[in-house]
Amino acid sequence: MSDWLDEVPWNDVGLVAAVAQDAASGRVLTVAWMNREALQQTAETKQAVYWSRSRNRLWRKGEESGHVQKVLELRLDCDADAVVLRVEQAGGIACHTGRESCFYRKLENGRWVTTDPVLKDPSLIYRK
Amino acid sequence: MSDWLDEVPWNDVGLVAAVAQDAASGRVLTVAWMNREALQQTAETKQAVYWSRSRNRLWRKGEESGHVQKVLELRLDCDADAVVLRVEQAGGIACHTGRESCFYRKLENGRWVTTDPVLKDPSLIYRK
Repeated sequence: MSDWLDEVPWNDVGLVAAVAQDAASGRVLTVAWMNREALQQTAETKQAVYWSRSRNRLWRKGEESGHVQKVLELRLDCDADAVVLRVEQAGGIACHTGRESCFYRKLENGRWVTTDPVLKDPSLIYRK
Repeated sequence: MSDWLDEVPWNDVGLVAAVAQDAASGRVLTVAWMNREALQQTAETKQAVYWSRSRNRLWRKGEESGHVQKVLELRLDCDADAVVLRVEQAGGIACHTGRESCFYRKLENGRWVTTDPVLKDPSLIYRK
Protein backbone atom coordinates (compact mmCIF):
# COMPACT_ATOMS: atom_id res chain seq x y z
CA MET A 1 0.00 0.00 0.00
CA SER A 2 1.52 3.27 -1.05
CA ASP A 3 -1.60 5.27 -1.88
CA TRP A 4 -0.40 7.87 0.57
CA LEU A 5 2.55 8.53 -1.72
CA ASP A 6 0.15 9.27 -4.56
CA GLU A 7 -1.37 12.08 -2.52
CA VAL A 8 1.86 14.03 -2.78
CA PRO A 9 1.83 16.22 -5.91
CA TRP A 10 5.51 15.73 -6.70
CA ASN A 11 6.87 18.85 -8.33
CA ASP A 12 8.06 19.06 -11.92
CA VAL A 13 11.30 17.31 -10.99
CA GLY A 14 9.57 14.77 -8.74
CA LEU A 15 10.45 16.30 -5.38
CA VAL A 16 8.75 17.60 -2.26
CA ALA A 17 10.29 19.93 0.34
CA ALA A 18 11.05 18.25 3.67
CA VAL A 19 11.51 20.17 6.91
CA ALA A 20 13.15 18.30 9.79
CA GLN A 21 12.39 19.64 13.22
CA ASP A 22 13.90 18.50 16.51
CA ALA A 23 11.12 16.73 18.37
CA ALA A 24 12.32 17.92 21.75
CA SER A 25 13.41 21.53 21.18
CA GLY A 26 11.21 22.29 18.18
CA ARG A 27 14.18 23.78 16.38
CA VAL A 28 14.15 23.54 12.60
CA LEU A 29 17.29 21.56 11.80
CA THR A 30 17.29 21.07 8.05
CA VAL A 31 15.28 21.74 4.93
CA ALA A 32 15.95 19.22 2.19
CA TRP A 33 14.16 17.41 -0.60
CA MET A 34 12.61 14.01 -1.05
CA ASN A 35 11.54 12.09 -4.08
CA ARG A 36 8.98 9.32 -3.90
CA GLU A 37 11.53 6.67 -3.01
CA ALA A 38 13.11 8.83 -0.31
CA LEU A 39 9.76 9.48 1.34
CA GLN A 40 8.80 5.82 1.15
CA GLN A 41 12.11 4.72 2.68
CA THR A 42 11.83 7.41 5.36
CA ALA A 43 8.42 6.07 6.37
CA GLU A 44 9.56 2.44 6.28
CA THR A 45 12.88 2.80 8.04
CA LYS A 46 11.88 5.63 10.40
CA GLN A 47 15.11 7.36 9.47
CA ALA A 48 15.30 10.42 7.25
CA VAL A 49 16.23 9.66 3.65
CA TYR A 50 16.48 12.61 1.27
CA TRP A 51 17.18 13.17 -2.39
CA SER A 52 20.49 14.92 -2.82
CA ARG A 53 20.12 17.36 -5.67
CA SER A 54 23.87 18.00 -5.79
CA ARG A 55 24.81 14.32 -5.84
CA ASN A 56 21.72 13.26 -7.75
CA ARG A 57 21.09 10.21 -5.62
CA LEU A 58 19.31 9.06 -2.47
CA TRP A 59 20.96 10.42 0.62
CA ARG A 60 20.53 8.57 3.87
CA LYS A 61 21.01 11.45 6.28
CA GLY A 62 23.96 10.53 8.51
CA GLU A 63 25.36 7.90 6.15
CA GLU A 64 28.81 9.49 6.42
CA SER A 65 28.57 11.57 9.59
CA GLY A 66 26.56 9.14 11.70
CA HIS A 67 24.18 12.03 12.38
CA VAL A 68 21.04 10.18 11.43
CA GLN A 69 17.59 11.58 12.03
CA LYS A 70 15.22 9.16 13.72
CA VAL A 71 11.74 10.03 12.50
CA LEU A 72 9.00 10.11 15.13
CA GLU A 73 6.30 11.71 13.02
CA LEU A 74 5.63 12.65 9.40
CA ARG A 75 3.18 15.40 8.48
CA LEU A 76 1.88 16.73 5.17
CA ASP A 77 0.61 20.22 4.53
CA CYS A 78 -2.69 21.39 3.07
CA ASP A 79 -1.52 21.68 -0.52
CA ALA A 80 0.74 18.69 0.00
CA ASP A 81 3.88 20.33 -1.35
CA ALA A 82 5.87 19.96 1.86
CA VAL A 83 6.35 17.45 4.65
CA VAL A 84 7.48 18.02 8.21
CA LEU A 85 9.49 15.39 10.05
CA ARG A 86 9.70 15.45 13.83
CA VAL A 87 13.05 13.83 14.52
CA GLU A 88 15.56 12.83 17.12
CA GLN A 89 18.86 14.13 15.82
CA ALA A 90 21.76 11.76 16.55
CA GLY A 91 24.74 13.57 18.03
CA GLY A 92 22.71 16.75 18.33
CA ILE A 93 24.29 17.90 15.08
CA ALA A 94 22.28 18.24 11.88
CA CYS A 95 24.53 20.51 9.83
CA HIS A 96 27.60 19.52 7.84
CA THR A 97 29.33 22.51 9.43
CA GLY A 98 29.15 20.72 12.79
CA ARG A 99 26.33 22.86 14.14
CA GLU A 100 23.05 21.81 15.71
CA SER A 101 20.96 23.31 12.92
CA CYS A 102 21.63 24.39 9.36
CA PHE A 103 19.86 27.64 10.22
CA TYR A 104 22.77 29.11 12.15
CA ARG A 105 22.66 32.53 10.50
CA LYS A 106 20.28 35.23 11.62
CA LEU A 107 19.41 38.49 9.88
CA GLU A 108 20.59 41.40 12.02
CA ASN A 109 20.69 44.96 10.71
CA GLY A 110 20.92 43.87 7.10
CA ARG A 111 23.53 41.15 7.63
CA TRP A 112 23.39 37.40 8.05
CA VAL A 113 25.15 36.90 11.37
CA THR A 114 26.36 33.48 12.52
CA THR A 115 24.83 32.97 15.94
CA ASP A 116 25.44 29.28 16.61
CA PRO A 117 28.65 27.58 17.70
CA VAL A 118 30.33 24.70 15.90
CA LEU A 119 29.82 21.76 18.23
CA LYS A 120 32.23 19.45 16.47
CA ASP A 121 34.95 20.10 13.92
CA PRO A 122 33.66 18.84 10.55
CA SER A 123 37.06 17.31 9.80
CA LEU A 124 36.45 15.00 12.76
CA ILE A 125 32.94 14.20 11.56
CA TYR A 126 33.81 13.36 7.99
CA ARG A 127 37.23 11.77 8.25
CA LYS A 128 37.44 8.64 6.17
CA MET B 1 21.94 48.00 1.57
CA SER B 2 20.62 44.71 0.33
CA ASP B 3 23.83 42.71 0.09
CA TRP B 4 22.22 40.13 2.35
CA LEU B 5 19.72 39.43 -0.41
CA ASP B 6 22.58 38.66 -2.78
CA GLU B 7 23.71 35.88 -0.48
CA VAL B 8 20.57 33.91 -1.26
CA PRO B 9 21.15 31.69 -4.33
CA TRP B 10 17.67 32.16 -5.73
CA ASN B 11 16.61 29.01 -7.55
CA ASP B 12 16.05 28.75 -11.28
CA VAL B 13 12.71 30.52 -10.95
CA GLY B 14 14.02 33.08 -8.47
CA LEU B 15 12.59 31.60 -5.30
CA VAL B 16 13.70 30.34 -1.91
CA ALA B 17 11.73 28.04 0.42
CA ALA B 18 10.39 29.78 3.53
CA VAL B 19 9.38 27.91 6.68
CA ALA B 20 7.27 29.81 9.19
CA GLN B 21 7.39 28.53 12.72
CA ASP B 22 5.34 29.71 15.68
CA ALA B 23 7.76 31.52 17.98
CA ALA B 24 5.97 30.37 21.11
CA SER B 25 4.99 26.76 20.40
CA GLY B 26 7.69 25.96 17.84
CA ARG B 27 5.07 24.44 15.58
CA VAL B 28 5.77 24.61 11.85
CA LEU B 29 2.83 26.58 10.49
CA THR B 30 3.48 27.02 6.78
CA VAL B 31 6.01 26.31 4.09
CA ALA B 32 5.83 28.78 1.24
CA TRP B 33 8.09 30.56 -1.24
CA MET B 34 9.70 33.94 -1.44
CA ASN B 35 11.29 35.83 -4.27
CA ARG B 36 13.78 38.60 -3.66
CA GLU B 37 11.13 41.27 -3.30
CA ALA B 38 9.09 39.14 -0.88
CA LEU B 39 12.09 38.52 1.35
CA GLN B 40 13.06 42.18 1.29
CA GLN B 41 9.54 43.29 2.19
CA THR B 42 9.35 40.65 4.91
CA ALA B 43 12.52 42.01 6.49
CA GLU B 44 11.43 45.63 6.14
CA THR B 45 7.83 45.28 7.30
CA LYS B 46 8.42 42.49 9.84
CA GLN B 47 5.39 40.74 8.38
CA ALA B 48 5.60 37.65 6.21
CA VAL B 49 5.32 38.36 2.49
CA TYR B 50 5.48 35.38 0.13
CA TRP B 51 5.42 34.77 -3.58
CA SER B 52 2.24 33.00 -4.56
CA ARG B 53 3.10 30.52 -7.27
CA SER B 54 -0.56 29.88 -8.04
CA ARG B 55 -1.49 33.56 -8.29
CA ASN B 56 1.91 34.59 -9.64
CA ARG B 57 2.15 37.66 -7.48
CA LEU B 58 3.35 38.86 -4.08
CA TRP B 59 1.18 37.54 -1.32
CA ARG B 60 1.04 39.45 1.94
CA LYS B 61 0.14 36.62 4.27
CA GLY B 62 -3.15 37.55 5.93
CA GLU B 63 -4.11 40.14 3.31
CA GLU B 64 -7.55 38.55 3.01
CA SER B 65 -7.87 36.53 6.20
CA GLY B 66 -6.26 38.98 8.59
CA HIS B 67 -4.06 36.11 9.72
CA VAL B 68 -0.79 37.95 9.32
CA GLN B 69 2.51 36.56 10.53
CA LYS B 70 4.55 39.00 12.57
CA VAL B 71 8.18 38.12 12.00
CA LEU B 72 10.42 38.08 15.06
CA GLU B 73 13.44 36.46 13.47
CA LEU B 74 14.74 35.48 10.04
CA ARG B 75 17.31 32.71 9.62
CA LEU B 76 19.16 31.35 6.60
CA ASP B 77 20.52 27.84 6.23
CA CYS B 78 24.02 26.66 5.39
CA ASP B 79 23.50 26.31 1.65
CA ALA B 80 21.18 29.31 1.72
CA ASP B 81 18.33 27.65 -0.13
CA ALA B 82 15.81 28.05 2.67
CA VAL B 83 14.85 30.60 5.31
CA VAL B 84 13.11 30.07 8.63
CA LEU B 85 10.82 32.73 10.06
CA ARG B 86 9.96 32.74 13.74
CA VAL B 87 6.55 34.35 13.81
CA GLU B 88 3.61 35.39 15.91
CA GLN B 89 0.58 34.07 14.07
CA ALA B 90 -2.38 36.44 14.25
CA GLY B 91 -5.58 34.66 15.21
CA GLY B 92 -3.66 31.48 15.91
CA ILE B 93 -4.63 30.29 12.44
CA ALA B 94 -2.10 29.91 9.64
CA CYS B 95 -3.96 27.59 7.27
CA HIS B 96 -6.63 28.56 4.74
CA THR B 97 -8.63 25.58 6.06
CA GLY B 98 -9.03 27.43 9.37
CA ARG B 99 -6.49 25.31 11.21
CA GLU B 100 -3.53 26.38 13.33
CA SER B 101 -0.98 24.84 10.97
CA CYS B 102 -1.02 23.71 7.37
CA PHE B 103 0.55 20.48 8.57
CA TYR B 104 -2.65 19.03 9.98
CA ARG B 105 -2.26 15.58 8.42
CA LYS B 106 -0.10 12.91 9.97
CA LEU B 107 1.04 9.63 8.46
CA GLU B 108 -0.51 6.74 10.40
CA ASN B 109 -0.39 3.17 9.14
CA GLY B 110 0.03 4.19 5.53
CA ARG B 111 -2.62 6.92 5.56
CA TRP B 112 -2.54 10.69 5.96
CA VAL B 113 -4.87 11.23 8.91
CA THR B 114 -6.26 14.65 9.78
CA THR B 115 -5.36 15.23 13.40
CA ASP B 116 -6.07 18.92 13.90
CA PRO B 117 -9.41 20.64 14.38
CA VAL B 118 -10.75 23.48 12.27
CA LEU B 119 -10.64 26.46 14.62
CA LYS B 120 -12.71 28.75 12.42
CA ASP B 121 -14.93 28.08 9.46
CA PRO B 122 -13.06 29.28 6.35
CA SER B 123 -16.28 30.79 5.00
CA LEU B 124 -16.20 33.14 7.98
CA ILE B 125 -12.53 33.92 7.42
CA TYR B 126 -12.76 34.72 3.72
CA ARG B 127 -16.18 36.31 3.36
CA LYS B 128 -16.03 39.40 1.24
